[in-house]
Amino acid sequence: MNSMHTLLLLMLLYPLEGLSGQTGQVAGQQLNLMPIPAELTPGEGRFRLADDFTITVSGPASDRAYNGATRMLRRLSGRTGLFFHQDFIGPDDTASTAPLELKWSRAGQVILGENESYTVEVTADYITLSTETDIGILRGLETLLQLLAADREGYYFPAIRIEDTPRFPWRGLLIDVSRHFMPVDVIKRNLDGMAAVKLNVLHWHLSENQGFRVESKTYPKLHQLGSDGLYYTQEQIKDIIAYADARGIRVMPEFDIPGHATSWLVAYPELASAPGPYTIERKFGVFDPTMDPTRETTYAFLDAFFKEMSALFTDQYLHIGGDEVEGSQWEANADIQAFMREHQLSDNEALQSYFNQRILKILTKYDRKLIGWDEIFHPTMPTNIVIHSWRGQKALGEAAKQGYQGILSNGYYIDLIQPTDYHYLNDPIPPQTDLTVKEQASILGGEATMWAEFITPETIDSRIWPRLAAIAERLWSPADVRDVDDMYRRLDVISFQLEELGLTHDKNYPMMLRRLTSNTDIEPLKVLVDVIEPVKIYNRPMQREYTSYSPMTRTVDAARADARVARNFRRLVDEYLNERKAHPATGRRFLGFGRKGRSEKVDEMVTWLELWEANHARLKVIIDQSPVLKEIETLSADLASSATLGLEALKFLEAGKTASPRWVEGKRNVIKAARKPRGQVELMVTTAIDALVKAAGGVLPD
Amino acid sequence: MNSMHTLLLLMLLYPLEGLSGQTGQVAGQQLNLMPIPAELTPGEGRFRLADDFTITVSGPASDRAYNGATRMLRRLSGRTGLFFHQDFIGPDDTASTAPLELKWSRAGQVILGENESYTVEVTADYITLSTETDIGILRGLETLLQLLAADREGYYFPAIRIEDTPRFPWRGLLIDVSRHFMPVDVIKRNLDGMAAVKLNVLHWHLSENQGFRVESKTYPKLHQLGSDGLYYTQEQIKDIIAYADARGIRVMPEFDIPGHATSWLVAYPELASAPGPYTIERKFGVFDPTMDPTRETTYAFLDAFFKEMSALFTDQYLHIGGDEVEGSQWEANADIQAFMREHQLSDNEALQSYFNQRILKILTKYDRKLIGWDEIFHPTMPTNIVIHSWRGQKALGEAAKQGYQGILSNGYYIDLIQPTDYHYLNDPIPPQTDLTVKEQASILGGEATMWAEFITPETIDSRIWPRLAAIAERLWSPADVRDVDDMYRRLDVISFQLEELGLTHDKNYPMMLRRLTSNTDIEPLKVLVDVIEPVKIYNRPMQREYTSYSPMTRTVDAARADARVARNFRRLVDEYLNERKAHPATGRRFLGFGRKGRSEKVDEMVTWLELWEANHARLKVIIDQSPVLKEIETLSADLASSATLGLEALKFLEAGKTASPRWVEGKRNVIKAARKPRGQVELMVTTAIDALVKAAGGVLPD
Repeated sequence: MNSMHTLLLLMLLYPLEGLSGQTGQVAGQQLNLMPIPAELTPGEGRFRLADDFTITVSGPASDRAYNGATRMLRRLSGRTGLFFHQDFIGPDDTASTAPLELKWSRAGQVILGENESYTVEVTADYITLSTETDIGILRGLETLLQLLAADREGYYFPAIRIEDTPRFPWRGLLIDVSRHFMPVDVIKRNLDGMAAVKLNVLHWHLSENQGFRVESKTYPKLHQLGSDGLYYTQEQIKDIIAYADARGIRVMPEFDIPGHATSWLVAYPELASAPGPYTIERKFGVFDPTMDPTRETTYAFLDAFFKEMSALFTDQYLHIGGDEVEGSQWEANADIQAFMREHQLSDNEALQSYFNQRILKILTKYDRKLIGWDEIFHPTMPTNIVIHSWRGQKALGEAAKQGYQGILSNGYYIDLIQPTDYHYLNDPIPPQTDLTVKEQASILGGEATMWAEFITPETIDSRIWPRLAAIAERLWSPADVRDVDDMYRRLDVISFQLEELGLTHDKNYPMMLRRLTSNTDIEPLKVLVDVIEPVKIYNRPMQREYTSYSPMTRTVDAARADARVARNFRRLVDEYLNERKAHPATGRRFLGFGRKGRSEKVDEMVTWLELWEANHARLKVIIDQSPVLKEIETLSADLASSATLGLEALKFLEAGKTASPRWVEGKRNVIKAARKPRGQVELMVTTAIDALVKAAGGVLPD
Repeated sequence: MNSMHTLLLLMLLYPLEGLSGQTGQVAGQQLNLMPIPAELTPGEGRFRLADDFTITVSGPASDRAYNGATRMLRRLSGRTGLFFHQDFIGPDDTASTAPLELKWSRAGQVILGENESYTVEVTADYITLSTETDIGILRGLETLLQLLAADREGYYFPAIRIEDTPRFPWRGLLIDVSRHFMPVDVIKRNLDGMAAVKLNVLHWHLSENQGFRVESKTYPKLHQLGSDGLYYTQEQIKDIIAYADARGIRVMPEFDIPGHATSWLVAYPELASAPGPYTIERKFGVFDPTMDPTRETTYAFLDAFFKEMSALFTDQYLHIGGDEVEGSQWEANADIQAFMREHQLSDNEALQSYFNQRILKILTKYDRKLIGWDEIFHPTMPTNIVIHSWRGQKALGEAAKQGYQGILSNGYYIDLIQPTDYHYLNDPIPPQTDLTVKEQASILGGEATMWAEFITPETIDSRIWPRLAAIAERLWSPADVRDVDDMYRRLDVISFQLEELGLTHDKNYPMMLRRLTSNTDIEPLKVLVDVIEPVKIYNRPMQREYTSYSPMTRTVDAARADARVARNFRRLVDEYLNERKAHPATGRRFLGFGRKGRSEKVDEMVTWLELWEANHARLKVIIDQSPVLKEIETLSADLASSATLGLEALKFLEAGKTASPRWVEGKRNVIKAARKPRGQVELMVTTAIDALVKAAGGVLPD
């Protein structure tokens, strides 16, 4: 894979005659592919789209390819408004004159390691997409859709040749539907989003303390008593598996055992290590209830259960969770303690490993491979299991050295509201790895985890997207594709394109602001929320106790990870201060804001700071009518006062004067106070303003 | 029902201390109930909401009431951000201290004519909602949610007493899922919207030339060959019926026979009146294929089919369509002609009536009542059928006089993009009716019809909402509730509240504009689309041929019925010209736009006109990058030039001068040209600008 070659080519501007964006951009166009393909060669000319555009197919019968092509045609039509003549593409669409030809050699299987490669060739006159499997066809069609461009003459594909293949075979998204249930349409639209960025595993976290989400015909009390009526019927599960399969995506179920299992025990307390009754857990955290691994009845139950689930779910892998077994029920149970002594199980880990070995036997019987979280990694386990690491590359690497395959989720916890570049630069095989090539091959890929303590169907998309697209690139593209600025540039485009799939990450934002303001003018609230983010990592539940029925409609829920306006402002300040460092100011006169002679960067900073400075007065009027906003009133005031400080600092800097240490210290204390989260949200521009204040005092960043 | 009393009370301002909207509204608050209740008495004080708010239930076991109360609690929590302590409300929630008490006497049945009345009493200390049935509980909970208000101290319900009952027992929405398929989630969110405005019938138009949308186990080829894979499984249908039942909504299926039946004949050509094969129809209109009503095999088929459907669908009524039987296949078929002679069936209507009588027997056997469109009304039919009138009140009245029950849809065709007030003032029993009281009682209500030629899951909500809320009021509220201005005022609020149910009528608008502009600045396009509407009635397909896979993502699809900005501008111009008529100008000096001394109305008109005048230059830049917008380029230019004329006319008027007839004629010709639809959309402010131009020439409106 000649990936440096690829990167350099992507930097090339495709010339675009006569187009000038109203935002003053250069008359040019860049490719906006995500993930970036392995190899790419620009060509000459443009393939023009018109109503007479058609697709021809050539390959063994494949509904996956036919339906994928039909969906692609609809999306093209949706974007361009062109009235294509083809209705549903099928085996009869073999006209040799059709401008887009899809060629595949065999039907693919939606299994780990299947060939997903494709070659796209676009010329001015025709397009060919050729692959080994029909799954490759899907991947290539998504690339084509990302290539669509426009000029005054109409829509076109730029001439290009792409040869592409994924770096890792396991590229997944975990969706936790247990802590908050997600209806079928939420899963489906996210499967469409996953397909758009070439992900290939939906890891479906189906059971938890807070809910058991699958209809079981063998043990119907599981869904009847363990789900509050919120579960998937087996028909719905089959429907989702078929939907995913049509998009080349595996659906791997997770049933988390022996811990995280309260909802099972509501229905079947006899499985527990302590007497019941149990009720569905409404809070979040790690809880005592754990299955009893010492009783044969537990295994008889799980055998029949996994027999049913192995028939329902088609994936080769079945995830048994295995994380965070709390242990207190085991320690308090004399029978269990006696069992451990009898079987020479020295500690809880050994007991859990005994349990896992029993489960492995059951799964093997039903032709399923076992995967579980780090905790299942134990010297007594055979190496034919897969380790799913929430602990990190080190744990994964150690397992690899001992012959275990593994996937990474540490660093991809998108529920923790960290910025995109953090996830993007997190590599399952870091550049400095000490693993041998063979050991590296056992690192299968990774999965982003959408844990569901703080999401609902209304907000889940905004937590997944667009950040997941960057993780998808990490897992598909060559390892040296690591340009953060270019990633962010492309991410904006991809994020917008994802909307056509019904994803709500953008459109629910103003809707939530309307609700927060009782449908008055949302603009002042938007100005604030554009520069705040929910608190990170595990701070949200630290600051307030939540249950599974707490409102998820507050400012913190409308706020989004990696707030773009704030990020761009921070970057602007960085660039400005770096420039000053390179070219120190020399006592020039302050020109006044809004006057000629001031740099564009200063103009832009001033525009933002003045907007924020004036915003609180406007927002205050709305807060007074919307009690739900009361919790962020002082935060809004702090944004205004921080902005004032930023403007003052800029005056010093632009006048070439230096502020006194006392001034700097006083102002920095104000900013420090502004940093304090309120309502579980925090201002994301205080660091940048603090840097301006420090610089006003003569201290530029390192 | 003392409805005048109600109306007057609604006009009263509820005092609201210290609140002043930033839009300069009076410090006050009006009730925003829709539909307006039958009787209403304001009280003293406010019931304040806090985290400790709880609900208690008192009545025979009713999941409908428990789950309805739980949903209401979640929506309250969602709007207020309050962390209520109750999770799921159930039979054990009987604490006598709970501030909101729900009391019902019996479980209701979701059947025509069931009691839906309720009484709500809100005091400063407690709220009671008491009803005969648990369906009344649902209706009352929606009213409570509409009463929620806020002031600086927090959220509250104003003290009030409401006694409410519907005027008509049949208040429905028809959704055509055949011409474009609508997935389960689309149906569910619209059921939630219907419940919010107290509608009680989903009329599900399930078969058409373009698609057969129900899984049939008796005749599986129906859905296998007649649906392109787009159909509801029986499990999904049961799920939707249960979902509707939980919201007090009947689900009435329609299987349109013997015409509109191409999709049946794809699977079973032997049912047709002419030899096959048939293919699924992709165009729209009235087509030849019709079932053969002369063969016993047709009835044997339909008997088994309706047996299956009567077991699947629980509603008492089954709609057999019966409209627009085209007749040409019958006329060309010698056997059918012979049959008609033999049975003395003088014309196609008589033959269809013969068919209908046979179907009536089948439905009666399966305990179903027959309903069909106007065409089933024939002297040979018994009076125990229901006439569904697309023809109008006259046809309905004639049927009523002959003893038939009926419902109205004429005037409620929301697919035809007519303004809300047109639908709102359309009454199943018009004020001037000549029907006796008894005959009036046979007018059961009405249904809005969401025909699906031009909608997709992305746009359907914007065609249904918010206009359907006004139709819901027509069918629920007293007949003399007819204040159009007040309806529009409340409609804005209700439209906003409907968003919390997941409806996309507002949030998909900017999303569609983003797609049309390839995600550049949408503002200039929004300025234009805010004052255009799709062409009305049947003009859209007259101007361009559509198929079921044509793109529904163009400007015409983003544009919405009854464009609010345009409506408000027209009203502003009306008011201004009426004022001038009352107080003719007397040669005063033109003060210049933007100067003191000019009326607020002139200011507002000028602001809009200047915005539109300047908009084309901004939009042109975007059109040049978005070929899909090319079709509305001249329309955008015409908005600008019309706006210029409006400004010129205002200069005359404000200067007290009169424009020459020649000037007026020239300008009116320009406006006439601007009125021409392009891209199936039309400007909705040209009439108002034309009125300004005429007035500038000295001719004020009548």
